[in-house]
Amino acid sequence: MTRRQITGFSNPTIKAVRALREKKHRKREGRFLAEGLRLLTDARESGRLPELLLMAEGREGHPLLDALEAAVAHAGGDVIEMPEDLLAKVTGKDNPQAVAGVFGEWDTGLQAMDRARSPLWLVAQAMRDPGNLGTMLRTADAVGAGGVILLDDCADPFSVEAVRASMGAVFTVPLAQARWEEFLGWLRLGAGQLVAASLREAVPYRGAPYAAPCFVMVGNESRGLPEDYEMACDLRVTMPMKGRADSLNAAVAAAVLAYEVLATLGG
Amino acid sequence: MTRRQITGFSNPTIKAVRALREKKHRKREGRFLAEGLRLLTDARESGRLPELLLMAEGREGHPLLDALEAAVAHAGGDVIEMPEDLLAKVTGKDNPQAVAGVFGEWDTGLQAMDRARSPLWLVAQAMRDPGNLGTMLRTADAVGAGGVILLDDCADPFSVEAVRASMGAVFTVPLAQARWEEFLGWLRLGAGQLVAASLREAVPYRGAPYAAPCFVMVGNESRGLPEDYEMACDLRVTMPMKGRADSLNAAVAAAVLAYEVLATLGG
Repeated sequence: MTRRQITGFSNPTIKAVRALREKKHRKREGRFLAEGLRLLTDARESGRLPELLLMAEGREGHPLLDALEAAVAHAGGDVIEMPEDLLAKVTGKDNPQAVAGVFGEWDTGLQAMDRARSPLWLVAQAMRDPGNLGTMLRTADAVGAGGVILLDDCADPFSVEAVRASMGAVFTVPLAQARWEEFLGWLRLGAGQLVAASLREAVPYRGAPYAAPCFVMVGNESRGLPEDYEMACDLRVTMPMKGRADSLNAAVAAAVLAYEVLATLGG
Repeated sequence: MTRRQITGFSNPTIKAVRALREKKHRKREGRFLAEGLRLLTDARESGRLPELLLMAEGREGHPLLDALEAAVAHAGGDVIEMPEDLLAKVTGKDNPQAVAGVFGEWDTGLQAMDRARSPLWLVAQAMRDPGNLGTMLRTADAVGAGGVILLDDCADPFSVEAVRASMGAVFTVPLAQARWEEFLGWLRLGAGQLVAASLREAVPYRGAPYAAPCFVMVGNESRGLPEDYEMACDLRVTMPMKGRADSLNAAVAAAVLAYEVLATLGG
């Protein structure tokens, strides 16, 4: 373990950590940033520790903060202390936090997904909003989904916004990223019912013949799912739309469907 | 109708419109900003026209844009044309739009809510995230809710972010703002079942004895509902939480509950 103190904004470590707010730097470094004691405690309890822990100087003692520091130190990670206002600049003015951590990204290949693990899985295609993506991870945790599979050009699940919206689920819910063709090939190698919310030849979502393992798929916020993706599904379901609009927020649609599948299949 | 052209960023009208991104200016002016042809068309089709329409010069003709301009002109509103880059500065760099409108806010008192209008209503207490609030308005439209009632210190439903996330529902879904005591007094003057998602003495949300008009209430994103609010409810329901976390995103929880109530009560 290294324990250091940093006092200046121009410090290279501070610059490197701040750069992790941008996707290109995250991808280059293979690292991401998570902020706040609650998130970092969720990570620790899930067996994920930051390589680098940033803490405010002169903070009040807190058992969870002490536990976090001890765990990072024990694992050989770095702990850096800095003035509160400097840490606030790292974590963002709108959301000052007394602690932040830099984590190494992990493998998000499909091969790590074990479809026997759960009757329910969530799939997002080209979901662009990191808040929606994080919310979907949070829902996946709540419904006991086997994991979340991100297809095509989704927002980065390791962005600060997605990590925050996931409320820690990014650390606990298995996550895969794949192109559509790759995913469909993987899916058809075993059991798996692909279900989409759709307006095309769809049956009511309530009481639909869901079958485990059930993969609930939602599409891009503006365009929805491409037609050929919908046509490749085993089941297309529709939800009541009693108002003027013909769609729900993508994360909301995923959740309403996921809870319906959960009620049908248990888990 | 006045039709003007503006070429400079320092123009007072431009400054006044930009200021509507801030709540204090919205409240002082009693006006808010909505951006994009889709939103403004939703507004027009719902009978809401902007007092002031901002359009980019040299735009391509578009039937919906022409219809919007004609409607605003017919109603005696102002139409202002400006260079595209100037309009982009008004609507924000991250979301450039070819058209924006300034709307007068409308009355959001409880007295305009007619509980006989729908078996289902949504209530949010101290919901702080404008995206969640807009998403909830969108869900309210989809489930045919009678309206959305915002309690205590919620985000501003007329903020640019909430209006955008509502996907136009802010123009179509009846909206009220009230303090808790005021709402509870209003509710108890007539029929109305108040339902909260809760962990306290709750029954499973699935198959719970919902009764119309049913008011589904969710709480603040971090703290949930205050205990005394929950205790004042007629029914407390719980949703399965099979993971590590004990709560859903507030807008997601509202939607899952709302669809369950809709399936029970119809609409």
